[in-house]
Amino acid sequence: MTILGAIEAGGTKFVCGIGTEEGEVLERVSFPTTTPEETMAQVIAFFEGKGIEALGVGSFGPIDPIEGSPTYGYITTTPKPHWGQYNMIGKLKEHFNVPMTFDTDVNGAALGEATWGAAQGLDSCLYITVGTGIGAGAVVGGKMVHGLSHPEMGHIIVRRHPEDTYEGFCPYHGDCLEGLAAGPAINKRWEQPAYELPADHKAWEIEAHYLAHALMNYVLILTPQKIVMGGGVMKQEHLFPMVRSKLQELLAGYVQHPALQSEIDQYVVSPGLGDNAGLCGSLALAKLALNK
Amino acid sequence: MTILGAIEAGGTKFVCGIGTEEGEVLERVSFPTTTPEETMAQVIAFFEGKGIEALGVGSFGPIDPIEGSPTYGYITTTPKPHWGQYNMIGKLKEHFNVPMTFDTDVNGAALGEATWGAAQGLDSCLYITVGTGIGAGAVVGGKMVHGLSHPEMGHIIVRRHPEDTYEGFCPYHGDCLEGLAAGPAINKRWEQPAYELPADHKAWEIEAHYLAHALMNYVLILTPQKIVMGGGVMKQEHLFPMVRSKLQELLAGYVQHPALQSEIDQYVVSPGLGDNAGLCGSLALAKLALNK
Repeated sequence: MTILGAIEAGGTKFVCGIGTEEGEVLERVSFPTTTPEETMAQVIAFFEGKGIEALGVGSFGPIDPIEGSPTYGYITTTPKPHWGQYNMIGKLKEHFNVPMTFDTDVNGAALGEATWGAAQGLDSCLYITVGTGIGAGAVVGGKMVHGLSHPEMGHIIVRRHPEDTYEGFCPYHGDCLEGLAAGPAINKRWEQPAYELPADHKAWEIEAHYLAHALMNYVLILTPQKIVMGGGVMKQEHLFPMVRSKLQELLAGYVQHPALQSEIDQYVVSPGLGDNAGLCGSLALAKLALNK
Repeated sequence: MTILGAIEAGGTKFVCGIGTEEGEVLERVSFPTTTPEETMAQVIAFFEGKGIEALGVGSFGPIDPIEGSPTYGYITTTPKPHWGQYNMIGKLKEHFNVPMTFDTDVNGAALGEATWGAAQGLDSCLYITVGTGIGAGAVVGGKMVHGLSHPEMGHIIVRRHPEDTYEGFCPYHGDCLEGLAAGPAINKRWEQPAYELPADHKAWEIEAHYLAHALMNYVLILTPQKIVMGGGVMKQEHLFPMVRSKLQELLAGYVQHPALQSEIDQYVVSPGLGDNAGLCGSLALAKLALNK
């Protein structure tokens, strides 16, 4: 059995795991994200002696995932203290002489869902997480989307809901998608935590408006075969039918495909890998490294 | 020398050409788009006896470019009379026993620009045409974007310009990007043809607003290494600096990359293939077919 290592590097915690090429997680631990010295020492100690044959790292960003670039493997311009311009892959290479893949947590999660999850067997899918921030990654033609860098789909501009006066909290763009629809926007708009708001609260209609506008643009630009929605806000399951229905209304029948009409319940879905979507994403990155 | 055939199938005319693997167009003719019987008879007569070894078709849409699909090679739900559910590749296969590639005109143009044009040597780019409609195609990881189907990026939702009261002309979405920013929208908003409006007219600030909003979303979702803007409206060259500058303002430095900062003049550009962008796109599709 081939043993793979997976790191889901988040801004709050690092989840590390050992798993197999079949997507099975054999062991899982987590460490708080403090300084690179402290956190990475724990990460490295965890993997030592485990016999991993490849390592996948899905990270918070922005990062440099472009192989051949001088800063490949770095967390780049993050405002998070201590982690700006940090050479994550360089550090790991000092300790583990195995193939590695480095990408965003959400690109990894999209690959994981396409490998073992809700989009298994498809060669395209989109994974979006709606939580304290909004991020999305995508697989197109079987490969994660790269170009200049990696996608930053959480910051697209959406049309404002006509009754929404909240200014948005994104420090860069104010009222981009993340600024208007991530968890903190709901909390601030209604002055209470999102999870306390009942399912028939106006908050959810506004939230569904923004998420459906985002999905509309993702569908028209990327035409993914599956859209997987994860993250804390999407634990509110009543959001799914609202988002699907609003998406259909916006598309107005323009793109004719069963996935967008009669089969939309199977098109916009929860992560097939559940709460392991992030860690399994990194495991999929490790599998990719192994087969490179 | 390998001889390739190229068809740029447009709603008004079909442009047919003979060319080489180096992107050289040796012969070029065009026929008005009337009925499939009439137009395709002219197309077929043109290619007969020319010794083409592969054929590329870049078509108006929507089409089915997904190989293996039961309707692969069809123009599908177009409202254009006579052309709905037309099996274009099936018809061509009756006459030419050569490998063929079928895609949208704009996906083809993106591939052409990545092969011989402004994005030569890059493995990602976006091509957008702004004319009587708005369409865009993209290359990601060296391949044209497919999934459920092909992109329909001209119909994304953009935030309205605060001073714009024009309702938009898209029969499906009203005020989507195409409805607000294609040539007919400019003509209708100002009640005169776009090309008559002086460069300092308010029309161009509004137009740049919509195009920059679209580019913002394309950049954040696809992260292309080059954006190529063609079509009749983009003949107004004063639009380029306006769009670039507005795009930078919207991004607000969030994505740090020289292409989006100091080198933006080389990032958002005119077609490297000029007025041959469409036909060369189809030639690139033929080259792809040859090498499949």
